[in-house]
Amino acid sequence: MNESVRNVYDNSVVIDGLIISNWSGEIFREMRAAGLTAANCTCSVWEGFEATIQNIAKWNGWFRDYADDIVQARSTEDIVRAKKAGKTAIILGMQNTTAFEDQIGYIEIFKSLGVGIAQMTYNTQNWVGSGCYESRDSGLSDFGREVVAEMNRVGMLCDLSHVGPKTSRDVIDASNKPVAYSHCLPAGLKVHPRNKSDEELRYIVEKGGFVGVTMFPPFLPKGAHSNIDDYIDAIDYVVNLVGEDSVGIGTDFTQGYGNEFFNWITHDKGFGRKLTDFGEVTNPVGIRRIGDFPNLAEAMSRSGWRSAKIEKVIGANWLSLLDRVWSV
Amino acid sequence: MNESVRNVYDNSVVIDGLIISNWSGEIFREMRAAGLTAANCTCSVWEGFEATIQNIAKWNGWFRDYADDIVQARSTEDIVRAKKAGKTAIILGMQNTTAFEDQIGYIEIFKSLGVGIAQMTYNTQNWVGSGCYESRDSGLSDFGREVVAEMNRVGMLCDLSHVGPKTSRDVIDASNKPVAYSHCLPAGLKVHPRNKSDEELRYIVEKGGFVGVTMFPPFLPKGAHSNIDDYIDAIDYVVNLVGEDSVGIGTDFTQGYGNEFFNWITHDKGFGRKLTDFGEVTNPVGIRRIGDFPNLAEAMSRSGWRSAKIEKVIGANWLSLLDRVWSV
Repeated sequence: MNESVRNVYDNSVVIDGLIISNWSGEIFREMRAAGLTAANCTCSVWEGFEATIQNIAKWNGWFRDYADDIVQARSTEDIVRAKKAGKTAIILGMQNTTAFEDQIGYIEIFKSLGVGIAQMTYNTQNWVGSGCYESRDSGLSDFGREVVAEMNRVGMLCDLSHVGPKTSRDVIDASNKPVAYSHCLPAGLKVHPRNKSDEELRYIVEKGGFVGVTMFPPFLPKGAHSNIDDYIDAIDYVVNLVGEDSVGIGTDFTQGYGNEFFNWITHDKGFGRKLTDFGEVTNPVGIRRIGDFPNLAEAMSRSGWRSAKIEKVIGANWLSLLDRVWSV
Repeated sequence: MNESVRNVYDNSVVIDGLIISNWSGEIFREMRAAGLTAANCTCSVWEGFEATIQNIAKWNGWFRDYADDIVQARSTEDIVRAKKAGKTAIILGMQNTTAFEDQIGYIEIFKSLGVGIAQMTYNTQNWVGSGCYESRDSGLSDFGREVVAEMNRVGMLCDLSHVGPKTSRDVIDASNKPVAYSHCLPAGLKVHPRNKSDEELRYIVEKGGFVGVTMFPPFLPKGAHSNIDDYIDAIDYVVNLVGEDSVGIGTDFTQGYGNEFFNWITHDKGFGRKLTDFGEVTNPVGIRRIGDFPNLAEAMSRSGWRSAKIEKVIGANWLSLLDRVWSV
């Protein structure tokens, strides 16, 4: 990488809006070594309340055991401090509201434990609304409206990546704080239940929201045959639609996981009906592993991006969004 | 009350080491109006993990709804700030480790949610050890040793008030931080399974620990016919045994509760075998209600206590203990 791009990368706050890897000391070392300043790390998908708490208890142990590499992010100040310390700040995130069960009060409990981001639904319908693989999207439930209001109040970002289109629009309209697709791709590049139309991408940003762009191969036009430049092109597609101030990274790294994991996430509740078949999941050439993160800056530069655009998309935009949502 | 005693009271940090009242806005107003600086407020007795979390979620709502009267105490600094603001700082406390279930990781979860004190057992045997109404005290279990170590690590006070004598001694020996009987009476004044022998009271303090003295009528020599001076005498009995630096108040106010509550707490797990019958529960004349708290200072003074002794026993000793336990 040429020195000027290296400098831009090294001086940037680098944020990944979604990682769901098979957490380990090895992964944490790789995150830190890659210069990742912060990441939204999934601590719940299909799990209910207790299992999610147990996942968070595991994270507490990791924060102790791997304190040289990672720190918990409860505020954007924690992220800025992590940058200075050269560590990776972990934002605990849920990819589902299943763990809230029927208790609005659990939302503040999770916030107190460091959960800063929660996706309203994961692929299918829950008590809050519908997922993107549900055959009919019922929209946001009345309970879901209470959940949005409480997430607004305590300062927890509403994530809509795996949420159905009607429910997403309802959440965007109901929320009095910015909301996000933390990790999605444009349907304009490939039609897929998980990808978002130009209209949807424009709508969320018009309402003050945010788009994190993923590189998850099944949703990319060239699938498992993509490379890092295809990923940058997808990001640029979104930037061209909504501007460069409301777009960020949301890789969806699944590093360390195999078939068992993909079977779990592609069945309703982890064990029910089959929702989709991802086929081969091989990340784009050039950004195969978390350790390849710096290559993103290089590819952005190669694609003609100015330094300011690189800085914003690689992390500053995420930081600004989290600051607006978490300030209460 | 004469002005000089009133001044001592008003300038003191006043701490009640145990209240288990039927929480309401009325109670919170009364706590504040009585000049109570902080109290260990029970949020779990027989409840398991989820029910206790739901109790804490209720407390979160009360902290919002009654913010003029109460604030949450997560540190001794919070208690000092509450004194300055003229509010009552609430220390969430558990009277049992049932809510930890079989998960050592839950201890840190509860600490993150503001639980600063937990009693190892409540009257009967649990996974940690035995209670004071258990016919044989099995002592601290191996799991219990892990619980003590984790409570030490995260900074949560081990309370032994309702714990059996052998388990209590094991905890005192196992803990590397001071532990407490938060609310007990001397067996030297009345023989009762809940009361502690002179030897036990001396032992905990010799090991750096603490004794909070209760006025719960069934454990007082004169029972429901006691008055506030009998309570002060009981405190003095303990002070004469262990000195005035390791003794505090732990009223065990049950204000707002009736028979249903006493039935619940006197049956194993809330519904099992009957453990004891309290008979009439009428607090000593002069300290019937939380609002009577200032009378304690007056009675102490009437009993010939110096100002320094009043200040220490009415709160400063508790503050010092919590500071030692919570500092990690």
